Amino acid sequence: MNNLLVAQSGGPTAVINATLAGVIQGVCTSDQIDKIYGAKNGIEGVLKRNVINLNEIAQDSSALETLILTPSSALGTCRFKLKDWKVDEEPYQKIVETFRTLGIKYFVYIGGNDSMDTVHKLSDYCKAHNLDFIIMGAPKTIDNDLALTDHSPGFGSAAKYIASTMAEIERDTASYDIPAVTIVEIMGRNAGWLTASAALARINGGNGPDLIYLCEREFNPERFLQDIRAKLENKPNILVAVSEGIKDGNGNYISDQLSSGVVDNFGHKYIAGAARVLEQLVRKEIGCKVRSIELNLMQRASAHLASNTDVNEALLLGQKAVSCALQGESGRMAAIKRLSNQPYRIELISVPVEEVANKEKKVPLDWITPDGYDVTEEMIDYLKPLIQGETNIKYENGIPKQIRLI
Amino acid sequence: MNNLLVAQSGGPTAVINATLAGVIQGVCTSDQIDKIYGAKNGIEGVLKRNVINLNEIAQDSSALETLILTPSSALGTCRFKLKDWKVDEEPYQKIVETFRTLGIKYFVYIGGNDSMDTVHKLSDYCKAHNLDFIIMGAPKTIDNDLALTDHSPGFGSAAKYIASTMAEIERDTASYDIPAVTIVEIMGRNAGWLTASAALARINGGNGPDLIYLCEREFNPERFLQDIRAKLENKPNILVAVSEGIKDGNGNYISDQLSSGVVDNFGHKYIAGAARVLEQLVRKEIGCKVRSIELNLMQRASAHLASNTDVNEALLLGQKAVSCALQGESGRMAAIKRLSNQPYRIELISVPVEEVANKEKKVPLDWITPDGYDVTEEMIDYLKPLIQGETNIKYENGIPKQIRLI
Repeated sequence: MNNLLVAQSGGPTAVINATLAGVIQGVCTSDQIDKIYGAKNGIEGVLKRNVINLNEIAQDSSALETLILTPSSALGTCRFKLKDWKVDEEPYQKIVETFRTLGIKYFVYIGGNDSMDTVHKLSDYCKAHNLDFIIMGAPKTIDNDLALTDHSPGFGSAAKYIASTMAEIERDTASYDIPAVTIVEIMGRNAGWLTASAALARINGGNGPDLIYLCEREFNPERFLQDIRAKLENKPNILVAVSEGIKDGNGNYISDQLSSGVVDNFGHKYIAGAARVLEQLVRKEIGCKVRSIELNLMQRASAHLASNTDVNEALLLGQKAVSCALQGESGRMAAIKRLSNQPYRIELISVPVEEVANKEKKVPLDWITPDGYDVTEEMIDYLKPLIQGETNIKYENGIPKQIRLI
Repeated sequence: MNNLLVAQSGGPTAVINATLAGVIQGVCTSDQIDKIYGAKNGIEGVLKRNVINLNEIAQDSSALETLILTPSSALGTCRFKLKDWKVDEEPYQKIVETFRTLGIKYFVYIGGNDSMDTVHKLSDYCKAHNLDFIIMGAPKTIDNDLALTDHSPGFGSAAKYIASTMAEIERDTASYDIPAVTIVEIMGRNAGWLTASAALARINGGNGPDLIYLCEREFNPERFLQDIRAKLENKPNILVAVSEGIKDGNGNYISDQLSSGVVDNFGHKYIAGAARVLEQLVRKEIGCKVRSIELNLMQRASAHLASNTDVNEALLLGQKAVSCALQGESGRMAAIKRLSNQPYRIELISVPVEEVANKEKKVPLDWITPDGYDVTEEMIDYLKPLIQGETNIKYENGIPKQIRLI
């Protein structure tokens, strides 16, 4: 039997199911694969042999179409890191047992850095033990921090959500005629790509955000207050975008630094986001109306506002992972190489997964403006193609139609 | 001169500009009105004679179409409450002066409870002084708390955003296989209509929210923990919707009650939302993974997800306010009377504004289930028609196209 097993791992995105659908389509268009299985909750489902048969949905084009535009991981996800097989071989043996029991020859793992670590370790184990299982990775992350790929599926849709939402928030905050600061916290502990995409809210001539702080640059609270004061001289409503992971000069997260003494009635430490901490700072030091907003799970789950470019690429990378597997590639990840910005052209490639695993692609410092609170035209040129196009998402009873697999 | 002045007031919504467009269209289709002006920042713009001419946009159908789907108050807004004219007549004299200078005969004020108070006081003043200015109100509020109208423009779109977003968040939270509680805070200090609309996330068979707490019922933290524990016995991921204004048995806001002792490093009191306070409570008492989310400005600004039913009604109510004004009605508000749920049919009416001003329409207690954490079928039947239909919003460079008037 030449069966294929697919699983999803790490934080969900709006298009990770499009990659799953791409894998399913890749299997359907090949006569080299007999059955397709999906493991529940990532590698945990492989370890526990907790799998579902995906052949039925593979034959149902309407269900596949709904799957493509259903957010989050339809097979469930996990955050499980395999230890080195030289340290603990047992999980590897269990995985191989699952593969043998189900007649799996190909395993495609859709995920981010940690998941690519799993792909790397598992393919490494197979090679070292002369096991001819094929292990392929397909990229997924809203953070856009995966190395060796121009960008990652999930990022474009999150960027489109952030750009559109910032444009809407800008309209809202601009409607009052009194000095006010609105601070929006955007996901990204170590990479500021998503925060940078807030700049796209100005792409059609919009008035904000006024200040954008990425986590790649040191964040100076005093300087931040100066920036706000300077902006307030020219307009009453200041809109700020900050990465959740902004750090001070000593490398400490701003949230930790300023909120360390905060406890609630029960003596428990308060967990405050960066924006909430900055809200407190502005209230104390400037004293104007101030509000903090976290885009929270919405930025990664809003499939209703997915980028069609992102959805299509997610789908294609799922197909690519299968075609690479069929060509015998193992320990590699399907990836995107950008050929040009305008017209936007890409090529699908595959890259060695050991060079992707556990690395983080950060924003180049020269894509941040010298004043430290905006991004350059080069960044805009990079980001702009990724949010283009709207999907034909179906609504049922007024809300987006979704599918559940497990 | 028979000119019309229009202004917007109170918290912005996704469709308040559709009502503005409706007023403009109402003027265009009448030969009784010469010019149309818009006051900036509500009644403040009338007081300061800070107005713009809207005749140009009235002739530009493409601009009007963009205005309809641009969120927030395109003319700007304010929170200004007129004192009784017997106490302070000066602002009334200023308003009348603006009316006379600009040749205004008709004034349409788009807003919520406080704005209807302005409509009431101003029309009352005019009647008492034999001034023949016509003062009409057009409703607007995401909170849906306006009396004498079945519902208010802005609510349906916010409800559609909340229902769709809760469905997306449910998919996200369901993807992990570990016990976790996600608490989503929804706007509404005194009326729980928006929180109730979270239930629509289940309309197509969705799995959540699991618990819904409206501000109309006493919130008991102990009972809340019991509810969570009971739900956790059947599924690992619990999704909760709470009104920002939930209160305990003594009428104190939950946020105030539990966070009263919280101060930051600078000794400043922390302002925590209800969901954040409940997050802390679950962390301490249950100890599982827990996250709080505020839908914040997004729930009122997300025009990209506006309900087409809501947009159309907003437009029609703007037109209705003008036609009522032309018929000599003053001190009244355009409103909606529901004729049937299925098929959904409404009638446009006008109601006396003094019976709307400063009142709050709350959720009937018998539309909340006896267990206190869900809503009845009657509520679903009421809500469902209001979120139906999607708009044909235009995107430019990947983000929704918007217009700026001021």
